[in-house]
Amino acid sequence: MILEKINSPADLKALDPALLPALADEVRQAVLNRVSLHGGHVGPNLGFVEATIALHRVFNAPEDKFVFDVSHQSYPHKILTGRAFGFLDPTRLDEVSGYSSPAESPLYDTFELGHTSTSIALASGLQKGRDIMGRHENVVAVIGDGSLSGGEAFEGLDVAAENGTNIIIVVNDNEMSIAENHGGLYQNLALLRQTNGAAQLNFFKALGFDYLYVEQGNDVHKLIEAFQKVKDIDHPVVVHIHTLKGKGYEPAVLDKERWHWSMPFDTQTAQPRNTSTAEDYSDLVGQFLLDQMKTDPSLVAVTAGTPSVAGFTPQRRAQAGRQHVDVGIAEEEAVALISGMAKAGAHPVFNVYSTFIQRAYDQLAQDLCINNQPAVINVFMGSVLGFNDITHIGFYDIPMLSNIPNLTYLAPASWEEFVSMERWAIAQSSMPVAIRVPGGAVVHSPETFPADYSVAPKARLITRGSRVALIGAGASVAWIQKAADTLRKNGIQPTLISQTFLSSLDEKLLESLLPDHQVVLVAEDGSIEGGFGQKIAAFYGNTPMRVLCNGVAKGLYDRYSYSGLLTQSHLTPDTIAADILRTLSIL
Amino acid sequence: MILEKINSPADLKALDPALLPALADEVRQAVLNRVSLHGGHVGPNLGFVEATIALHRVFNAPEDKFVFDVSHQSYPHKILTGRAFGFLDPTRLDEVSGYSSPAESPLYDTFELGHTSTSIALASGLQKGRDIMGRHENVVAVIGDGSLSGGEAFEGLDVAAENGTNIIIVVNDNEMSIAENHGGLYQNLALLRQTNGAAQLNFFKALGFDYLYVEQGNDVHKLIEAFQKVKDIDHPVVVHIHTLKGKGYEPAVLDKERWHWSMPFDTQTAQPRNTSTAEDYSDLVGQFLLDQMKTDPSLVAVTAGTPSVAGFTPQRRAQAGRQHVDVGIAEEEAVALISGMAKAGAHPVFNVYSTFIQRAYDQLAQDLCINNQPAVINVFMGSVLGFNDITHIGFYDIPMLSNIPNLTYLAPASWEEFVSMERWAIAQSSMPVAIRVPGGAVVHSPETFPADYSVAPKARLITRGSRVALIGAGASVAWIQKAADTLRKNGIQPTLISQTFLSSLDEKLLESLLPDHQVVLVAEDGSIEGGFGQKIAAFYGNTPMRVLCNGVAKGLYDRYSYSGLLTQSHLTPDTIAADILRTLSIL
Repeated sequence: MILEKINSPADLKALDPALLPALADEVRQAVLNRVSLHGGHVGPNLGFVEATIALHRVFNAPEDKFVFDVSHQSYPHKILTGRAFGFLDPTRLDEVSGYSSPAESPLYDTFELGHTSTSIALASGLQKGRDIMGRHENVVAVIGDGSLSGGEAFEGLDVAAENGTNIIIVVNDNEMSIAENHGGLYQNLALLRQTNGAAQLNFFKALGFDYLYVEQGNDVHKLIEAFQKVKDIDHPVVVHIHTLKGKGYEPAVLDKERWHWSMPFDTQTAQPRNTSTAEDYSDLVGQFLLDQMKTDPSLVAVTAGTPSVAGFTPQRRAQAGRQHVDVGIAEEEAVALISGMAKAGAHPVFNVYSTFIQRAYDQLAQDLCINNQPAVINVFMGSVLGFNDITHIGFYDIPMLSNIPNLTYLAPASWEEFVSMERWAIAQSSMPVAIRVPGGAVVHSPETFPADYSVAPKARLITRGSRVALIGAGASVAWIQKAADTLRKNGIQPTLISQTFLSSLDEKLLESLLPDHQVVLVAEDGSIEGGFGQKIAAFYGNTPMRVLCNGVAKGLYDRYSYSGLLTQSHLTPDTIAADILRTLSIL
Repeated sequence: MILEKINSPADLKALDPALLPALADEVRQAVLNRVSLHGGHVGPNLGFVEATIALHRVFNAPEDKFVFDVSHQSYPHKILTGRAFGFLDPTRLDEVSGYSSPAESPLYDTFELGHTSTSIALASGLQKGRDIMGRHENVVAVIGDGSLSGGEAFEGLDVAAENGTNIIIVVNDNEMSIAENHGGLYQNLALLRQTNGAAQLNFFKALGFDYLYVEQGNDVHKLIEAFQKVKDIDHPVVVHIHTLKGKGYEPAVLDKERWHWSMPFDTQTAQPRNTSTAEDYSDLVGQFLLDQMKTDPSLVAVTAGTPSVAGFTPQRRAQAGRQHVDVGIAEEEAVALISGMAKAGAHPVFNVYSTFIQRAYDQLAQDLCINNQPAVINVFMGSVLGFNDITHIGFYDIPMLSNIPNLTYLAPASWEEFVSMERWAIAQSSMPVAIRVPGGAVVHSPETFPADYSVAPKARLITRGSRVALIGAGASVAWIQKAADTLRKNGIQPTLISQTFLSSLDEKLLESLLPDHQVVLVAEDGSIEGGFGQKIAAFYGNTPMRVLCNGVAKGLYDRYSYSGLLTQSHLTPDTIAADILRTLSIL
């Protein structure tokens, strides 16, 4: 095995060039081995194997700096920079993350990267910093075509070009984003491919870049030749390479969207290793919206490059037709778009992961909320039970969204409550509404929920007890209900409240607890800091009420265990009940 | 006077075409009249007079929709749509805002607009919404060349082009942003101007737009001709018009940066009506950074298109040379850039208005803070005493910034404290630091401040008293000090604390107040919701301490009076003292 001898880029450089295609095969098998056992990004990594070998053959890492956009194509780089064990050794898969990480490789990974379209902007900083410090290393940003639609990528290109010094942007054009590409730019990439890079009309040249096209983006020798041409270049250049997403694994080539990322699978059958028949909110939301579209032709589901967030499979997208809009990876555009669409009389619903809605803070505040347009945003995975990679944490949404003036942020605790809120939010015409889709497994409820949240109470009283009140929202409603079982065994009949509005308190309900309650515990499926627990603490600040805020402490978390973080954050039923009992014992 | 007869676009359409140049002169005089008496955007409006007349002559507002980017060129539109009184009648200037506003003109103003680069994205929503609803009106976005550098503008272009239906983007190219333009894109605009629009290399065409160039962008008849060509077009088109910023007012033509926006001035002498010799923080910061650059060649001041925010006048920029970087209006790039520069070993300082730093929330969280790069951000006008236009409110910075994991957000209360913090922040290499430049007039302090904020206490004890503690931060430290004078007259010796860290509490200090304090009042120069007052309330939640959070209630505010909002928010010394006395009286 050639790969066994490659522990650093130096080893790769020493290799007989004739062996490079065989090495590429081994790297590809290593990628497949990991993703089939562990899950991860399949297609983009398989397509970028030869390019990575060529980059490390030509440039001199760690002096020369690589920035891999969103890390979706960084696995071959990891394999070639001393981390092959995380791909080959089934007992060591967890030692390597799915993303670029200086914590993992301080020498070879420049930044922690998991959000899209950031590479060129970060690289422009390395470029400018290098120039200021008087050094001369190469700065190389690798970006997929799908990431070019993001505004930060454009801002980075614009500034990197003006900086005028060495920077090499490798555009990995595999003709796909996560799903198909969207945006006028992709016509130009197609034209450039069709003309072997010769077309006069050239987006990159228009921004001031030198430009080189490589049609054979999976030919390691052609790539080496191209990178040698641009190494140590004294001005900004784009190397546009045409690669095959999924190359080397037939199922991934045939269905590029399915195989962008995968849960563990059997490489022979291409079937998932674990299949689940459990309901999930994404699928339910997609089907619900599709059904609603049939009777409301003005209802439009919007995504920013991640249609599957709301279960919009290719089949459902086909059924939705023009009532499903994918703007590509462009969350700012998505929020402005829904504001404009609502202004024009349509009923837009933007479905987005919690970790990505923060890419559009200013658009939420300015384009949507100051303008008070009745668009709807469904926020998915805003929960401790969401993504657990450091770059994908989704539980800072409440501090971010609930403090934006004029945004109503709702927290259903069950599918049925979500449906009530969603129906109202789509039909109403008086305010922007975001809805936090609950984290974790789907919860069903036999209750009847309000039809109009513009007049509904801002919190839902589940049970009226005394002495103690437990307040949850979304998934944490189930946690306080379980904690209440324990408390009842201890002779305490707690009041239970679902904080259905994350953006404002039900002051009347809170006020009503004062005469016969001593302690309020808020269990927040998210950050304590800036959350609704702190608002409740402030509400009771000038009263004798004791308030406990349980939730996640502000900090960076990477690949945490769900049960560990819930326990540490005092969000399990046991820790909640224990906190109440301890507090009562000292009052 | 022709203008007296123009109360709507219909009146304009009925006018003899030969009178249009004379009308343009009158509109120009009306603009000048207002800005010279009231202050406002001078150059961009003067340059866009003919284009506005032509737009309203050709298109049919309010059926056809106009979106004026950032509103800097919307005054002529206001004048021609029934709001000339706000420009001509000195007693009615305050009835018209400086920005597009549906609250002011529901028929003719489509959106409240004050942040840059949003127009095309919003217009793409009007375009898509119109298509969904089956209507056929024209959608017209007007954007200055300076606004094109923002990522949202690019995302909007990309999607508007793909939408494929009627949308008309008028690019008002006056060869300037607020200051000079920055970014590779501007080479292409220059090429297009030089070739009368004929160059093959065309940024807009590369994105899929049809394209029309008008060199005589201040010739109303040429403009009418151009707009007639694109009216009712069935696909996306860019009309690139070359205008003269400041046209018609010589001083504004000669010094375009000075006259982008102006305080009231005498039109004859071009001198400000009110001159102030008072110190201001912007000027002090600019001079301080310039001085520091002389001994630290790695120190680089960064701006996103607003160099004057930190007093970087053209003269100072010339002195700073490559140690001042303007990325153009591109806040996302600015934050990623400083992260990359810090990684490369330089000492970058990004100077930015509070209202604009929210355009880079994701970059702060991901590119900067997860990557823990020691870059510095100076946040200006984060205060009730900052901008008071609805789109420019700066007092939501604390909820936004202080809840981002791994960002240290500091609040100096005086110039000298700012300098201590800034020196440390620039020199250290362990964390990203944002510093909230205090609002209001410059405060000086004779105190000695810590040299190292990585070990300094997170709050500064000003006076140790008993029973009552008043906690302020930044400008509000002076307010609690004045309130303390009143309390002392009432026999109360309050503890006074400056909350120097907005991002974390000094738990030891807060703990130490428990034995001999009954009430803590937090006076926050900003939003109560998500602020540090609520964190303090939560800290004391499970204790008998009474906590009052004074600050601005969450909401939208437009052209508020400073004293009115301070009083309403219980932030004046009198209201603070009264709250304490009332609370003590009922304990």
